[in-house]
Amino acid sequence: MTHSQRRDNLKASIAAAGLDAMLVTDLTNVRYLSGFTGSNGALLVFADDRGSVLATDGRYRTQAAEQAPDLDVAIERALGRHLTGLAADGGVNKLGFESHVVTVDGFDALSGVLDDQESGGSTELVRAAGTVEQLREVKDAGELALLRLACEAADAALTDLVARGGLRAGRTEREVGRDLEALMFDHGADAVSFETIVAAGANSAIPHHRPTDAVLATGDFVKIDFGALVAGYHSDMTRTFVLGPAADWQLEIYELVRQAQRAGREALRPGAELRDVDAAARQLIADAGHGEHFGHGLGHGVGLQIHEAPGIGATSAGTLLAGSVVTVEPGVYLPGRGGVRIEDTLAVAANATQANPATSEGAGHTPELLTRFPKELAVL
Amino acid sequence: MTHSQRRDNLKASIAAAGLDAMLVTDLTNVRYLSGFTGSNGALLVFADDRGSVLATDGRYRTQAAEQAPDLDVAIERALGRHLTGLAADGGVNKLGFESHVVTVDGFDALSGVLDDQESGGSTELVRAAGTVEQLREVKDAGELALLRLACEAADAALTDLVARGGLRAGRTEREVGRDLEALMFDHGADAVSFETIVAAGANSAIPHHRPTDAVLATGDFVKIDFGALVAGYHSDMTRTFVLGPAADWQLEIYELVRQAQRAGREALRPGAELRDVDAAARQLIADAGHGEHFGHGLGHGVGLQIHEAPGIGATSAGTLLAGSVVTVEPGVYLPGRGGVRIEDTLAVAANATQANPATSEGAGHTPELLTRFPKELAVL
Repeated sequence: MTHSQRRDNLKASIAAAGLDAMLVTDLTNVRYLSGFTGSNGALLVFADDRGSVLATDGRYRTQAAEQAPDLDVAIERALGRHLTGLAADGGVNKLGFESHVVTVDGFDALSGVLDDQESGGSTELVRAAGTVEQLREVKDAGELALLRLACEAADAALTDLVARGGLRAGRTEREVGRDLEALMFDHGADAVSFETIVAAGANSAIPHHRPTDAVLATGDFVKIDFGALVAGYHSDMTRTFVLGPAADWQLEIYELVRQAQRAGREALRPGAELRDVDAAARQLIADAGHGEHFGHGLGHGVGLQIHEAPGIGATSAGTLLAGSVVTVEPGVYLPGRGGVRIEDTLAVAANATQANPATSEGAGHTPELLTRFPKELAVL
Repeated sequence: MTHSQRRDNLKASIAAAGLDAMLVTDLTNVRYLSGFTGSNGALLVFADDRGSVLATDGRYRTQAAEQAPDLDVAIERALGRHLTGLAADGGVNKLGFESHVVTVDGFDALSGVLDDQESGGSTELVRAAGTVEQLREVKDAGELALLRLACEAADAALTDLVARGGLRAGRTEREVGRDLEALMFDHGADAVSFETIVAAGANSAIPHHRPTDAVLATGDFVKIDFGALVAGYHSDMTRTFVLGPAADWQLEIYELVRQAQRAGREALRPGAELRDVDAAARQLIADAGHGEHFGHGLGHGVGLQIHEAPGIGATSAGTLLAGSVVTVEPGVYLPGRGGVRIEDTLAVAANATQANPATSEGAGHTPELLTRFPKELAVL
């Protein structure tokens, strides 16, 4: 889908909401709608057929012209204020803005433009939180291709790490993390998706642990949560290993999490209630008596952001959309002992016939597994 | 300075502003005041001698207790709402909030707490933007020590890169950037401060260029802007090299930028007007006829954020504070040909007697140079 087609979808969306134009100031949303990746930008999209306007500062004059050749580019200092003025001058009555992004001070500044401006008297700023994020929830073919590449880079890096013996007793969490990150770069990552988690032994019981100089030891669980960034798109995967023969308690919780993760994946059907997807995995863990050891949600959307819509948790409202890309990542964490999390990134089938036969695990609405590193317990 | 002492400074600051308490929701500010580094946290600080309350979610229960042992920790889902409720229950009349950080939707949620709550009737949310940032502008001894470490890691990495012949014709910008980043890790960096800029040939004329597969060639300027992160503190340095004998135009603009950068450094005196510091460097460049080729500000504060107060530009208001840490980074960029930027991170003298004799370049108010890699034109 071209950026212009994405803006057309936004036009339809804001028109349906009774807005005459939308001021987009979230940088990820600006990128999604325009292709512009600079660190300062804002976009004004009219509901009618007037062309959108991208505003940025002088540092990005060349970059904006290259990345968004189909847009008018305004070089300005106060981007939101400038575009709000344009909207008012253009006779916009209802101007949507991203109330989940614009700060209180930012809103005061936008309102100030309308107060100062003669034509501003008839322009009203209307809260329109999440309008673009909603469009982003369903990935188009180009996005899905980049998500596949990001997941492949992560898969290949972890495969290499293990093949080279990089996961062994005596190394530190930090060393393992750095090696894995370097391998992702070797396999085409532009950057890491987020700070790599390598958590050994008792640290594996901490859901979000930052790598330390802790040394991996025989008998440890080693939990690794990491991802690659490719052309702005993120991958997200967690695998848990055991160094040396696994103890019974380790086998038990590993198998439990693996079953729960499979149940979660199998619940990824277009139209499913998000909380039912969460429950499909959570119920198994609760039934095994570990409900209180799984304290986070089951998953989240992945795309231009590492965490985006939809959230998949026990209290999530709404349904899973065909074509969305989400993680499924149950865990069981035993404080002071260790923990297991298994996480995949998957594309929810757009529809039964469009499923990729090369990668789907079955027929019909089976999601496409993007992170393909094996999930059987690997004893290293 | 302990986190408790920092909170005492904030108490004095908010009391002077007529506030009874302050809700801190910016994560960097929360870290500065509490030591807590999780990705979700908020802090309530009372102007009187009541203890501050740190709120976070269940993922960070252990971490919050470890990092902020002197604080009450509340485990909650809606952090700001919870702390606003606590403030109202505690009889706070004027509750400061970070209006430059809190979104419009976030503000609605906080207001909603006060509307719902019986005791909320007397609590008013008051804009208090930048209150903590103002305190952060002057670095304490512990912060300065970490900034020195961050700058040393960057210095050592660039020294190694050059010594190993890592900067030579035939390599790509991306390869150079990755090597430099790996060397920073070797020298103790926890992460990079920001995406490393390696810009060769005509790309060096783009102030903020992302490394590409462009190949370095003989005769190129190679501009490298990079930094290391150590325990949350950033370094920021730019050096520009020439591959092979320099052409006259290269020698000319390099020497011009070097003189301008020195003039900017020499203007870093406590109490100096920020715009005068900018002008000290800019005037030299303008006098040489390159005013329009230096399109950005002269520098910015560096600390827990790579860009923080003060901004040093042609229109900056205010004065340079003793004990602040800032960059000085003039540049001259000739579109299509190449550009030069030279940037240091420096600590503005706290006072004449406290200057570090080992590193200050002279007596009195001379700033401490934290990035010490040579600035003479290196022809590689």
